[in-house]
Amino acid sequence: METVAIVGVGLIGGSFGLALKKAGFSGKIFGVSSQETLRVALERGAIDETATLANAVPKADLVYLAQPIGRIIDTLRHLDPLVRPGALITDAGSTKAAIVSAAGKFLHLAAFLGGHPMAGKERRGAAQADGDLFEGRAYVLTPEDTASLESHPARNFVDWIRKIGARPVVLTPEEHDRVVAFTSHLAQLASTALAATVAEQAGDRLEVAGPGLADTTRLALSPYELWRDILATNANAIELALTAYINKLEHLRANLRTREVQGEFEIAAALAATLRK
Amino acid sequence: METVAIVGVGLIGGSFGLALKKAGFSGKIFGVSSQETLRVALERGAIDETATLANAVPKADLVYLAQPIGRIIDTLRHLDPLVRPGALITDAGSTKAAIVSAAGKFLHLAAFLGGHPMAGKERRGAAQADGDLFEGRAYVLTPEDTASLESHPARNFVDWIRKIGARPVVLTPEEHDRVVAFTSHLAQLASTALAATVAEQAGDRLEVAGPGLADTTRLALSPYELWRDILATNANAIELALTAYINKLEHLRANLRTREVQGEFEIAAALAATLRK
Repeated sequence: METVAIVGVGLIGGSFGLALKKAGFSGKIFGVSSQETLRVALERGAIDETATLANAVPKADLVYLAQPIGRIIDTLRHLDPLVRPGALITDAGSTKAAIVSAAGKFLHLAAFLGGHPMAGKERRGAAQADGDLFEGRAYVLTPEDTASLESHPARNFVDWIRKIGARPVVLTPEEHDRVVAFTSHLAQLASTALAATVAEQAGDRLEVAGPGLADTTRLALSPYELWRDILATNANAIELALTAYINKLEHLRANLRTREVQGEFEIAAALAATLRK
Repeated sequence: METVAIVGVGLIGGSFGLALKKAGFSGKIFGVSSQETLRVALERGAIDETATLANAVPKADLVYLAQPIGRIIDTLRHLDPLVRPGALITDAGSTKAAIVSAAGKFLHLAAFLGGHPMAGKERRGAAQADGDLFEGRAYVLTPEDTASLESHPARNFVDWIRKIGARPVVLTPEEHDRVVAFTSHLAQLASTALAATVAEQAGDRLEVAGPGLADTTRLALSPYELWRDILATNANAIELALTAYINKLEHLRANLRTREVQGEFEIAAALAATLRK
C-alpha cells in the first residue's frame, strides 16, 4: 500500500490519515474534500496533497470513503471507472447494509470492503482529527464473504487497521446494523427523547436538576445532520430497538412499587460496569 | 444557630457538616449514624461529636435529616418529644410529598421545613463528603406556607444555605416531586432501561459500541437501594413522566424517515446546551 485517497477528511478521515502516519505509513495520502476542510487537514498533516476524486482515485491503492452515508453512496456511483486494478475501496459509514448494497450495485470492477470504526468524539471536523482515535477501539468489517478478506489488498488493509491500534471485528452488514441500532442509535434517540421531554415538561425548572441529567443528555447535543442518513438507512433495525426499549420502560412503569425493578437495576448496573472495563 | 444534629452522615449529611464549617459555622455539630459512618465523619471533620438521636436532638437548634427517605419518615415519628422549643427540623430527602406529609402527621410541637439540595456524586458515603458539594447548586425548600419561611429559625437556616454557596428555590412538595420526576427520576430510569435493553439484545457484542453509550448509561450504575424509596414515594409522578417519555419515543419511531425528527433533535440539543451553561 503506497498511495491512499481519503475522501471526506473530517474527524474520521483526518484521524485515519494521522493514524496511518503515526503507525509508520510512508506512502502518499491524497485528500478529497471541501476546500476549507482540505486546508485544515493539510495544516494538521492528515494528508499530503489535495486532489479531486478523478485525480486521486486512479493513483490510489486504497480509497477510504469517510463522508456521511448519503455522500458515500453518491461517491460509489462514480468510482468504478476510476479505480486502478488491485486497489481496494473501503468506507467508514455508520450503517452498513445500504452502503454494501450500493457498492454491489455500482461497482463491477473495483473491490469493496465495508467498514465502521467504533470511534468518535463529541466534536467533528478535521480540526478534531486525532491519530489515537482508533486506539483500543473495535473496527467492524463487513465483507461480502470471508474469502474476500483473504485478497492481498484486504489483508494489507486489515494489517493497517491493527497497526493503528484498532481491533478488526467481522460481521455481516445486517448483523452490524442490528447491533449498532442498540449500542449506538438507540442510545442517541433515548438521549434526544429524554432532553426533548424534559424541555417540554420541566424546561422552566432546569435549576431543579441533579448533575446526572447532564450525562444522560450529552448525546442529545449531536446535530440532526449527522443522524439523518443513519436514521434513514437503518430505520427497520432502529424501530425494533425502540420497541424493545419502550417495552422495557413500560415494564418499569408497571412495577415501580415492586421489587421487580430491582432485577432491572442489577442487569443495567452490570452492563454499565462492563462498558467501563 | 449554635448546635446542629446531623442524622445520617453519608455523602449529603457529611458534606453539609463540612460546608457549614467551611462557611464559618463555629458551633457544635453532633452526628447520629452507624458506628462506621460516624468514625469516617469524625475523621473527615464533618462532625464534632457522635451521639444517639435521644442525646443529640434535645441540644440542637437545627436537626438535619440526611438519611434515605424511609429512614427519614421513621425518624420523624420519634422527634416530637425530643426537640427543644425554637428548634427547626429539616431534611434532605429526594422526594418531598411523602416526607412533608409524615412530618405533618408526627410533629405537633416541632417546626419542620422540607428541603432537597440538588447536589450529588456518583459515589456515596461519608468518605465522599465534600464541603463544596452545594456550591452553585439549587437547594429546594418546600414550606407548608411561605409565612413559615419567615420564622427566626427558618430564616437562619436559609441564611446558612446561601453561605454554603447554594441557591434556595421555594416549591410546593407536589411541584418539587413533579419536576424531579422529569429532571432526575426519569433520567435514571431512561438510563437503567437503556442499559437493561442493550444487555438483553446486544450484550454479547459490546465491543461494537461507540463511546456515547457509556455516557448514557452512567446513571445505570446507581444501586437500587438508593432508588427503592424514591420510586415508591413518587410513583404517580414518575408514571406520568415515563408516559410522556414513551410517547416521545413512539413519535420518533413513527417518524424516523421524516424531517419531523429534526425538530426534536433541535429542541433536545438546545436543552442539553442549556444544562451546560
